Amino acid sequence: MSRTRVHNFSVSLDGFGTGEDLSLKEPFGHAGHRLHEWLMATRSFHRMQGAEGGSLGVDHAFADQHGPDIGAEIMGAGKFGPPGWQDDPDWTGWWGPNPPFHTPTFVLTHRPRPSVELEGGTTFHFLDATPADALARAREAAQGQDVRIGGGPTVVRAFLAAGLIDQLHLVIVPILLGRGVRLWDGLEGLEQRYSVESVTTPSGVTHMTFTR
Amino acid sequence: MSRTRVHNFSVSLDGFGTGEDLSLKEPFGHAGHRLHEWLMATRSFHRMQGAEGGSLGVDHAFADQHGPDIGAEIMGAGKFGPPGWQDDPDWTGWWGPNPPFHTPTFVLTHRPRPSVELEGGTTFHFLDATPADALARAREAAQGQDVRIGGGPTVVRAFLAAGLIDQLHLVIVPILLGRGVRLWDGLEGLEQRYSVESVTTPSGVTHMTFTR
Repeated sequence: MSRTRVHNFSVSLDGFGTGEDLSLKEPFGHAGHRLHEWLMATRSFHRMQGAEGGSLGVDHAFADQHGPDIGAEIMGAGKFGPPGWQDDPDWTGWWGPNPPFHTPTFVLTHRPRPSVELEGGTTFHFLDATPADALARAREAAQGQDVRIGGGPTVVRAFLAAGLIDQLHLVIVPILLGRGVRLWDGLEGLEQRYSVESVTTPSGVTHMTFTR
Repeated sequence: MSRTRVHNFSVSLDGFGTGEDLSLKEPFGHAGHRLHEWLMATRSFHRMQGAEGGSLGVDHAFADQHGPDIGAEIMGAGKFGPPGWQDDPDWTGWWGPNPPFHTPTFVLTHRPRPSVELEGGTTFHFLDATPADALARAREAAQGQDVRIGGGPTVVRAFLAAGLIDQLHLVIVPILLGRGVRLWDGLEGLEQRYSVESVTTPSGVTHMTFTR
């Protein structure tokens, strides 16, 4: 049975999944890399960058769940590029010629464009669709494997609100961003539909899994 | 050196320190007791109620830090009674003839009234004052001991924003209240002024300490 999964989704203690003032130079705005330091220290992340080294502890074990059994990803327009990327016909994402997705990857945008095939198995498709319709398309492309919802916070929230997420791996980072894009608005009672576990790791973050 | 401390302050995963629609019947509004189940299970809480039993694990160890070395408490009007208690001259708090404070206890309200002395060492004083001025009054009453900021969320936030808290024990409860009174608004970068630790316990909550 194909499942819909979120992995390595970091939020600040005050609930922001990304900062304010996102730009080409600052993809996470004033948050910088502070939400992802725990991830960038892991072997899993190093390997994804084609680099050696990295930690092999609990943070790595969680981070490494990101890839297996995924047959497609859905991401929001805000993850694919900085504000205004829709005006640049040559923009193909932040990730260079060989993006770390290696599957069909669906970008939700109100201004769709033709699909772009890059190296390593990543093809970006652009959809103006509801979460449910986008998921149906991605599930078909995943050919029986799971679909990852890749963020950002607006997209994760929309899929949670629509009841479409089977498995959510959330990472609470003990910083207060004060401003940015909130994950939690409008999700009252969400925990009642899931089995929830939490664990704090030596890096100081708290991993939470919501599973159904 | 007298310190200013917050203990056992529970917030939902989405940052609410209490619910919506607070009333005499529902002191925490739609949150009910869900933010405090971890606390109510402890020996520390049972003992405070004059009851036997209760757990003696990690949650208890944290809960039991609430009392020692405290010489005064400051609380907000919203903790002292339900909305409108100021119109009832006979209202002396939720806690009956022997409240669990056992020290001078300062209630912040825009409508002060004469002090009330109850059993067990608790005297309620009513102040219309800024956080800094209230703290100066409470510190004098504490006679060299520490001052506890007892909540609710509005008061804890105000004292944090004013830089007056030396020690904050926070408990993240893995529920989404969706609405209520937020703790975190306007506290960007707070963590940079503290040493922060986190630990998840078998009850599922995450205890955090902010210490300076």
